[in-house]
Amino acid sequence: MNGFIYKIPTKVYFGDHLGMLASELKKFGKRVLLTYGGGSIKASGLYNRIVSALNAAGLELHELSGIAPNPRIESVRRGVTMCKKNDIDVILAVGGGSVLDASKFIAAGAKVDFDPWLFFSEWRPIKSALPLVTVLTLAATGSEMDAGGVISNLKTNEKIGRAEEILRPRVSFLDPALTFSVSPFQTAAGSADILSHVMETYFTTEPDLELLDGVMEAIMKTVIKFAPIAMKEPENYEARANLMWASSWAINGFVEGGKQHAWSVHPMEHELSAFYDITHGLGLAILTPRWLKYCMGDKSTLPKIVRFGVNVMGISPQLAPTLIAKKAVEQLSDFFFKTLKLAPTLSKIGITDENFAQMAQKATRGGVIEGFIPLDANDVESIYNMCL
Amino acid sequence: MNGFIYKIPTKVYFGDHLGMLASELKKFGKRVLLTYGGGSIKASGLYNRIVSALNAAGLELHELSGIAPNPRIESVRRGVTMCKKNDIDVILAVGGGSVLDASKFIAAGAKVDFDPWLFFSEWRPIKSALPLVTVLTLAATGSEMDAGGVISNLKTNEKIGRAEEILRPRVSFLDPALTFSVSPFQTAAGSADILSHVMETYFTTEPDLELLDGVMEAIMKTVIKFAPIAMKEPENYEARANLMWASSWAINGFVEGGKQHAWSVHPMEHELSAFYDITHGLGLAILTPRWLKYCMGDKSTLPKIVRFGVNVMGISPQLAPTLIAKKAVEQLSDFFFKTLKLAPTLSKIGITDENFAQMAQKATRGGVIEGFIPLDANDVESIYNMCL
Repeated sequence: MNGFIYKIPTKVYFGDHLGMLASELKKFGKRVLLTYGGGSIKASGLYNRIVSALNAAGLELHELSGIAPNPRIESVRRGVTMCKKNDIDVILAVGGGSVLDASKFIAAGAKVDFDPWLFFSEWRPIKSALPLVTVLTLAATGSEMDAGGVISNLKTNEKIGRAEEILRPRVSFLDPALTFSVSPFQTAAGSADILSHVMETYFTTEPDLELLDGVMEAIMKTVIKFAPIAMKEPENYEARANLMWASSWAINGFVEGGKQHAWSVHPMEHELSAFYDITHGLGLAILTPRWLKYCMGDKSTLPKIVRFGVNVMGISPQLAPTLIAKKAVEQLSDFFFKTLKLAPTLSKIGITDENFAQMAQKATRGGVIEGFIPLDANDVESIYNMCL
Repeated sequence: MNGFIYKIPTKVYFGDHLGMLASELKKFGKRVLLTYGGGSIKASGLYNRIVSALNAAGLELHELSGIAPNPRIESVRRGVTMCKKNDIDVILAVGGGSVLDASKFIAAGAKVDFDPWLFFSEWRPIKSALPLVTVLTLAATGSEMDAGGVISNLKTNEKIGRAEEILRPRVSFLDPALTFSVSPFQTAAGSADILSHVMETYFTTEPDLELLDGVMEAIMKTVIKFAPIAMKEPENYEARANLMWASSWAINGFVEGGKQHAWSVHPMEHELSAFYDITHGLGLAILTPRWLKYCMGDKSTLPKIVRFGVNVMGISPQLAPTLIAKKAVEQLSDFFFKTLKLAPTLSKIGITDENFAQMAQKATRGGVIEGFIPLDANDVESIYNMCL
């Protein structure tokens, strides 16, 4: 059992607290860069609410719009230029994980003189960043309370994640009502993302605090219960609220404790999105049950999959362990592909095996992912093939 | 469902990280007031480790020892005087909840010109405080990560709690190995304290995030599993580690979400300790099952007690709800009084009913505690009598 350092200083306003937004921003200065995606925050009226509040408070507003899903390094570069040109004091990111992730690296890029892609391609140090405040509109990535983000470079087919404490949002506004307009598909994909974050940490043979396993089981059960409700009743506050707080706690670092193993499914999925620009949560849903099934080839994984089957999927502990494990993976597949109605295979979303060998090399960076079981490029390619 | 503001900036070093203590203290200044209780940290060698580390780092050390359980206002006063006289920069509290609680109000008292008891008797504002760093030696009160504390005034038979964000420790060192020497009785009483913190929040008819109910159930199950192990095997690191992290998360504010109901058992227990100076966790254990039984008289409480019975105590959901609730309270009593071997009644620890009426008045402050069910002085007196 490893030790760890816990530090999550993000202040979260949960519920309808947008009235506090301007005063929180003012603590960091006067010049605000507002970052967002497409027109959805304009259609919903959120954009107007925010701009009015900031204007009324006398804040100087600059805007960067058009940050796309799987956010591109080009958006980061544009934001960095705007920060430098306008001497921005604080970034206000309004949107889902893509807007928040891009904003984290804009915040860091504003403090250096080199191209921000070098944070990813050369792992240049991130030692300072502008303060970041967020207003979340999608429960999925957990970027609102975590220290990391993922940026894509379509020119090089690369999608690379990076985390540094300095990137963690200072203040995040989480109003479940702002996710009422999220489509059933995005609700499903976001929920798969939340589940995957927990599973990447939960499924390990590395012993750690049982307390945290219990907390992770609570998060997974919450998502499994409320995701279908939110899809059917988009304005169900209770469902949206539970998914939203689950998204933050799945990945803010708490459930990790002292675990040090690498995540497995995210690097495999990052290659899918890098090559095919698919929705991240959809890729995770397709990959996760196959990955678990593949891991079951190693007997060391059985106890944790059985625990998951009993405690999360509600399978009777009286059954034989191997049967519990098999049923657990089947029920998880049913949840993703029947209940959440996500596409069940890569073929269904038009992806063939032509790039699998190259993607597997990139996912493993030519080595081994030391996760639930170690995965080399051959293993990863096999898992991609199981997803066809 | 209420909104809430989440902010827990305490940095926690979990595991053997005492090597970082001096550098964390140095961030706040040079002059350190070390506060502790009796001789146990000297017997264990912890005192020498800390003093050596601080001396080696060139820190100026002052000491306040002798802080007793149910910490007294006199200790706070002595600490305040030392802080002012020596221009202390940071307080280092080494011990359990009593040392930490006293240190919080020493930190606040150092910043004002009036007697620190006025924080309690007149609710004088607490607007600033010296920074507090803690090294925890007992898993119980959660003071290492929360914003509150409780101080006793034996002259007036008062024990009053107060919480302000500024009192939250900046950095806490949680090394489970430092609790290996905790006696079986103190382990049991501490575990009852942790459970009670969760139960005060969990048992409510106020709807809130189901996610948090799941997390609270995980904490309760963790304590119920590991407390007996820690009593039998004092050096079982896994058991000590789970209890320690459970103690912090039971009361740091996370599980509370947006709930606003008052705690019930703690105010009743505070009168017991104020009048009889008993161990806080022991008082909570005696009171809690009687309080739950008393609350069952109101039908609104049944669903939550049933949920507790099924999800925490493992009772079959096939049974009738009233039977599940009855069994849940019985099993909780068995846990406290048989498994943890705590004294089952007030009579067993020499307490009679002579002060019950006065204590009930004080516990309710002449009004009503708006908890799981509303309790006035008559209700509280009845619960005290059930504990005889």
